[in-house]
Amino acid sequence: WAGRYGFDLNSRETLRTELNVYGDFHPRLPDHYRRTPYVFLANIHPALQIEVLQQVERGAFVALDTMDFWIEVARDALEAVLARVDMVSLNDSEARELAGTPNLVTAARRIQNMGPRAVLIKKGEHGALCFNGDAVFFAPAYPLEEVRDPTGAGDVFAGGVMGYLAEQGGDPIAALRRAVIYGSAVASFAVEDFGCRRLRTVQRAEVEVRCRAFRAMTAVDGWEG
Amino acid sequence: WAGRYGFDLNSRETLRTELNVYGDFHPRLPDHYRRTPYVFLANIHPALQIEVLQQVERGAFVALDTMDFWIEVARDALEAVLARVDMVSLNDSEARELAGTPNLVTAARRIQNMGPRAVLIKKGEHGALCFNGDAVFFAPAYPLEEVRDPTGAGDVFAGGVMGYLAEQGGDPIAALRRAVIYGSAVASFAVEDFGCRRLRTVQRAEVEVRCRAFRAMTAVDGWEG
Repeated sequence: WAGRYGFDLNSRETLRTELNVYGDFHPRLPDHYRRTPYVFLANIHPALQIEVLQQVERGAFVALDTMDFWIEVARDALEAVLARVDMVSLNDSEARELAGTPNLVTAARRIQNMGPRAVLIKKGEHGALCFNGDAVFFAPAYPLEEVRDPTGAGDVFAGGVMGYLAEQGGDPIAALRRAVIYGSAVASFAVEDFGCRRLRTVQRAEVEVRCRAFRAMTAVDGWEG
Repeated sequence: WAGRYGFDLNSRETLRTELNVYGDFHPRLPDHYRRTPYVFLANIHPALQIEVLQQVERGAFVALDTMDFWIEVARDALEAVLARVDMVSLNDSEARELAGTPNLVTAARRIQNMGPRAVLIKKGEHGALCFNGDAVFFAPAYPLEEVRDPTGAGDVFAGGVMGYLAEQGGDPIAALRRAVIYGSAVASFAVEDFGCRRLRTVQRAEVEVRCRAFRAMTAVDGWEG
């Protein structure tokens, strides 16, 4: 994939998508992967995401990421895999495109109707929205002064969410809001330097500090209601 | 003013600004306005905002709203009035333009350095950021499925903030986060119908319900940290 970021590093334009080695790829999971209780289908052709799903045992919590490219060239396959996942993660413009509406609340509801009960909408510096049933959770983005490279931030976010859910165990939906904060915190480190550089050095304690900062950012003193 | 809204009703383009009766206007405050403890300098030529400020007694909590137009045609006057206010409210693109940086955190800090200790950055459907000293507060926008007319939403937001502060009394900064939620709640009603139509019927109890919904949108169960 080759693209270009906007002035504020918050939107991107795809210049070219080359499938390269994935053009002919068919995933084959090792046996001990097939019983994993948490599956994240990262962004690739939805037909390949289905192939992965067919190899894992039923009962896993399955999340899916996708991209405008697949919405445009493989919508039928994408809808088929969406019908079989618990959660989907996509950015705001992709949610609008997939659902065919400019309104994100309507878009999330339409995407929920396609299958996933939880819809995570990534909005870059504007944070993330998490729709789960009728509930909406609004997670801020960490207010960074230095944003060097947003490439992969969405994958890091989803990885952070899934990692937290897997660590917690139990009902993923009950831990989902905390997981979104963790995912946002980890993603905030990812954009601080180019590529994966910052992720190679970040420590769990630093992630925890940032999670507390996220809480402070939405804390309101003196509410009575 | 005449403008055009984008596809998602979240950005606007100014087509034309005509000052009309304000071209020759000089505000003259009635005596009993001069001792008001809360002053909101709504969006107009910053030279007129200064004229208002010169007529009110010292010690009032003063907030200012402005617009890209004044940043472009009257920056010196705008900087002069900014140096004399406690709080400023402007949208994200205006904050970037005023501060000359794409980064909102940097922009807010630069604007604080121009005078106001509190900077409210309005981001439409992405909510609002409130910078106060070193603290950042992130307020969500109410997730509406029907957005009919965003015209004036920023003024309603600022009016809601100031109204809440005036009602509460005491230190405005201590009540600021709650005020931002109230302002967001009132603004969420404003955009539901054209012009001021919805504001003529909305009841305080409805605003309170929406404020509670805002709290629920950022609530996270099960935190330990």
